[in-house]
Amino acid sequence: MAAGELIRLLLQHPQAHIQFVQSESQAGKRVVYCHPDLEGECNLKFTSSWQPDVDVLFICKGHGQSRKFLEENMIPKRVKIIDLSQDFRLKETSTSQGRNFVYGLPELNANLIKEADAVANPGCFATSIELALIPLMKSVESNIHVHAITGSTGAGQSLSVTSLFSWRDNNISTYKVFEHQHLSEIEETLRYVNPSFNSRMYMVPVRGNYARGIFTTLYTSASLSGQEIRDTYRRYYQDSPFVRVNGDQVYLKKVVNTNNVFISIRKDVDMVFIECVIDNLLKGASGQAVQNMNIMFALDESTGLKLKPSAY
Amino acid sequence: MAAGELIRLLLQHPQAHIQFVQSESQAGKRVVYCHPDLEGECNLKFTSSWQPDVDVLFICKGHGQSRKFLEENMIPKRVKIIDLSQDFRLKETSTSQGRNFVYGLPELNANLIKEADAVANPGCFATSIELALIPLMKSVESNIHVHAITGSTGAGQSLSVTSLFSWRDNNISTYKVFEHQHLSEIEETLRYVNPSFNSRMYMVPVRGNYARGIFTTLYTSASLSGQEIRDTYRRYYQDSPFVRVNGDQVYLKKVVNTNNVFISIRKDVDMVFIECVIDNLLKGASGQAVQNMNIMFALDESTGLKLKPSAY
Amino acid sequence: MAAGELIRLLLQHPQAHIQFVQSESQAGKRVVYCHPDLEGECNLKFTSSWQPDVDVLFICKGHGQSRKFLEENMIPKRVKIIDLSQDFRLKETSTSQGRNFVYGLPELNANLIKEADAVANPGCFATSIELALIPLMKSVESNIHVHAITGSTGAGQSLSVTSLFSWRDNNISTYKVFEHQHLSEIEETLRYVNPSFNSRMYMVPVRGNYARGIFTTLYTSASLSGQEIRDTYRRYYQDSPFVRVNGDQVYLKKVVNTNNVFISIRKDVDMVFIECVIDNLLKGASGQAVQNMNIMFALDESTGLKLKPSAY
Amino acid sequence: MAAGELIRLLLQHPQAHIQFVQSESQAGKRVVYCHPDLEGECNLKFTSSWQPDVDVLFICKGHGQSRKFLEENMIPKRVKIIDLSQDFRLKETSTSQGRNFVYGLPELNANLIKEADAVANPGCFATSIELALIPLMKSVESNIHVHAITGSTGAGQSLSVTSLFSWRDNNISTYKVFEHQHLSEIEETLRYVNPSFNSRMYMVPVRGNYARGIFTTLYTSASLSGQEIRDTYRRYYQDSPFVRVNGDQVYLKKVVNTNNVFISIRKDVDMVFIECVIDNLLKGASGQAVQNMNIMFALDESTGLKLKPSAY
Repeated sequence: MAAGELIRLLLQHPQAHIQFVQSESQAGKRVVYCHPDLEGECNLKFTSSWQPDVDVLFICKGHGQSRKFLEENMIPKRVKIIDLSQDFRLKETSTSQGRNFVYGLPELNANLIKEADAVANPGCFATSIELALIPLMKSVESNIHVHAITGSTGAGQSLSVTSLFSWRDNNISTYKVFEHQHLSEIEETLRYVNPSFNSRMYMVPVRGNYARGIFTTLYTSASLSGQEIRDTYRRYYQDSPFVRVNGDQVYLKKVVNTNNVFISIRKDVDMVFIECVIDNLLKGASGQAVQNMNIMFALDESTGLKLKPSAY
Repeated sequence: MAAGELIRLLLQHPQAHIQFVQSESQAGKRVVYCHPDLEGECNLKFTSSWQPDVDVLFICKGHGQSRKFLEENMIPKRVKIIDLSQDFRLKETSTSQGRNFVYGLPELNANLIKEADAVANPGCFATSIELALIPLMKSVESNIHVHAITGSTGAGQSLSVTSLFSWRDNNISTYKVFEHQHLSEIEETLRYVNPSFNSRMYMVPVRGNYARGIFTTLYTSASLSGQEIRDTYRRYYQDSPFVRVNGDQVYLKKVVNTNNVFISIRKDVDMVFIECVIDNLLKGASGQAVQNMNIMFALDESTGLKLKPSAY
Repeated sequence: MAAGELIRLLLQHPQAHIQFVQSESQAGKRVVYCHPDLEGECNLKFTSSWQPDVDVLFICKGHGQSRKFLEENMIPKRVKIIDLSQDFRLKETSTSQGRNFVYGLPELNANLIKEADAVANPGCFATSIELALIPLMKSVESNIHVHAITGSTGAGQSLSVTSLFSWRDNNISTYKVFEHQHLSEIEETLRYVNPSFNSRMYMVPVRGNYARGIFTTLYTSASLSGQEIRDTYRRYYQDSPFVRVNGDQVYLKKVVNTNNVFISIRKDVDMVFIECVIDNLLKGASGQAVQNMNIMFALDESTGLKLKPSAY
Repeated sequence: MAAGELIRLLLQHPQAHIQFVQSESQAGKRVVYCHPDLEGECNLKFTSSWQPDVDVLFICKGHGQSRKFLEENMIPKRVKIIDLSQDFRLKETSTSQGRNFVYGLPELNANLIKEADAVANPGCFATSIELALIPLMKSVESNIHVHAITGSTGAGQSLSVTSLFSWRDNNISTYKVFEHQHLSEIEETLRYVNPSFNSRMYMVPVRGNYARGIFTTLYTSASLSGQEIRDTYRRYYQDSPFVRVNGDQVYLKKVVNTNNVFISIRKDVDMVFIECVIDNLLKGASGQAVQNMNIMFALDESTGLKLKPSAY
């Protein structure tokens, strides 16, 4: 699904041209066979092999497959790489074939991304939680309590019982409570921002009964006032074209089908309560990948990413 | 899903006791492993073989598998059979191993069902369309235009793309337009009611983005007035504990989670317009199977079937 | 909606007979005008006044209206009262007109309910959170972190923007974070169970995009093992016909359209993580009201409450 | 909702600049107060009066209010008008204050729209049904049977029972069967294409349980083969940037959040069966309004309308 979404974005990107879409399992088929909404906009066929004559290569393979792909294929040095898997996100896993993958959260690492020849695109939960916390990290003193509800597209097209409509419609459930695989990615990022951070993060991931979006709420104790915290966030994100900070409540559909991030910050007695909404397939995956491409190629960061919210 | 629903009904049926639940693929597992909502209400395990010491055997196998099961297993004559597949619904397929399957639409065939030792439970679309048309059949002179929207549980637990939540959520599509497999069952029933009926039925089946229920609309030309037609229907269904006839609009959630049937009849100039709603897993499958059981064993027809509508 | 649901339950209750349904705004109209799914099952009309010749009076009025009703109407002493508002739930608000309202959580107060002539039916969130915590209260030493997602029927039929389908469909939002009106009810109950409890409860209420059900997750630190805690809960709830305790994950649709409560308990390092699901209109409102009635009249607690789960 | 969607489109339109947004009821408030997803993208406030210094005026008022507005306000001749109500769609209602409103279906009337100073934007159902039929009109000999399912945004923000989430979630119902107000608009358009057309159209409008989109199916008898009909359609729509014609099934989410139209055509014995999907707020309202603006100002027809499908 992230791959399909990436194709949708690149087809409308004024500075991008898709040279090829490689897929072993679908090789020879038209791209519109898998993504029928693109009929009339995409005449490409899936190719069985990748082609070296490109400026940037996006890799949308299953976790573990990206590293294998790089080891088995000799990507020319001049081809930049943006990988959407979790294979290179952690510091200790960030190198392969002489490349050093920069963690591709533009609101944190824009300067590194600009110079990078390889970017590890963050996870969807990680993006949401990190953006909701980074400007606060200097002030966090206690444990962080996170609750994040994700749409079904977060699970891709796997055919498991919990991905069936009859199961998931009007249903709610949790999974990987306190042990989601994004936790180490998140904790490493937060520690990078504040090396002395050593509180615990409790994260409850929830399967929501909708297709798109992540709705994250979190709280931790803080001595700053709500207004001070909002001001800190606004300063931090003042140059970001996608992040909006306010004190009102957010709701998920503000961001669905966009690359936007809405962050709401309120203070209640001792706790700062933060809500953050993103579209898991866009800011949480392919939109962020294109944002990284824009930065790597010195384009305006929001090129091709001014998307009409679905809103309703 | 029909099997699970049947177990739910029988567990609460005051005159029924489940002797065994046979399943080759799940043999040895607890029934609550597949139907976790039944925890605390069902201690049965799936058995690998069926047992002969029962009064009635419900068969919930895939289409084609029921006939095979009967051919390969010697069911004692005194054990009545209620089959939920389409294997024995048509006149020409209604016999097997010396049994003659009665078409189990109680509102049409109660007298035959009473005496039957084998019943073929009707299909869900067929139930809805037949109940919406039977009392009118003597007056139908022209083609019948049917549109029927079904919930995802109509497709069972098959793991196809169109059964994925990410695909079906907020989505609509048709399938088997003009050629749904229930059409021959329906036409045979209508011709049984009115042997001279030879109009064509155009049926558009639609996949709805909800789990339970069938919403059927149909129209045909008729010379009777709306009131005359409603009166005819009310007379026809006066002894049925489940069918309600009126002139107001119906909506799907009136019947969800019940064995009820709501039929709305209005006349517009030359056309009679009929709406019919049922729960596809209850009146369209397992509820009707229990209704047939009640009739076969001379119990009150609605025993164990007075179900609270979910309503919201 | 709670009133409609109560009517649905009482119509099928083998020991109950609805004498009248009073409503000022709907007086004179048929009950099925407001609850069309009941057509054929209910011939009552709304009356403009209440009638004294009943055994029990259910009051389903807006918060604040119940107390006013009791003050303005002289209910005979022999008529028992079950009130569904929040007017009498707290100790300091529990008396009116010489009656002392017992807090109607049967799993906690069955002995008091048995003798009571007036019961204050708990709130829906309160029911869910209290049942998830009561057996643990002796061991709770730290703050409790609660996240609870509710269906739209929790908000009744108010015509606000957030209750519109176009707004709520595929949308998520929070409300009354850390300050939901049920918190004082919950804290009073928990302190009743363990008077020395003085930790704080952080509660994040969430509007879910479905109609029925409350999905509650909560955690707190505990020194007992997961198995010890589950054993404690099972002992506590061993006589309850509705509460099931296990270690597996729960999901919302296990309980939708039933009076059941599923509680899942797991231990993760230092935290006990508890999930609890109920149907907000049944165990969270009208089902519990009927359960209280059963207890008050010495009927089996589950009479009329063995409801088929909608499951799908 | 159409107004909000129009603002979303115009904000991202490379050649458009919103001069003002007038609203009597919201005057003085920020536009983002009503459309919070636009925060950071729109600093406008609603004005109490309209301003004459614009090139084009979009009118998004309730039906009947547009005509009144034009009668009470003197719009300068040089200001073009695009009206989204039904006030000027029919030939006999198409003039006001010396202006002659062209029916704004670009795929039919592009040449007239180019020269027009006033355009009546078609209805959403009308757009869907007309586009599905126009190329066939020369060959239609019999009645046309139409079934069209609409999302909740088709009803705007009216606070009626059927627009409540608790009512509409997982629910289906019809309304205005055979008498929808768009029928006369549709029939006039079809007769404009083929003056000898005098068959009847039977239209069943359905309320779907989703927010966006219209899913239309229709059939009529035709002597041409499926391939001949598809070829006819493809020729007719060959210059349209938004309409795609094929023989495969369509599904609603192909077009949600786009201005696209997917038309599927198949032949079954005697009937041609056509499916057509649009987004009711875009091609069915505001997207088409912008498309008309593009044509009126000699811009590329798809300027600002290349929208990423939400797809999932």
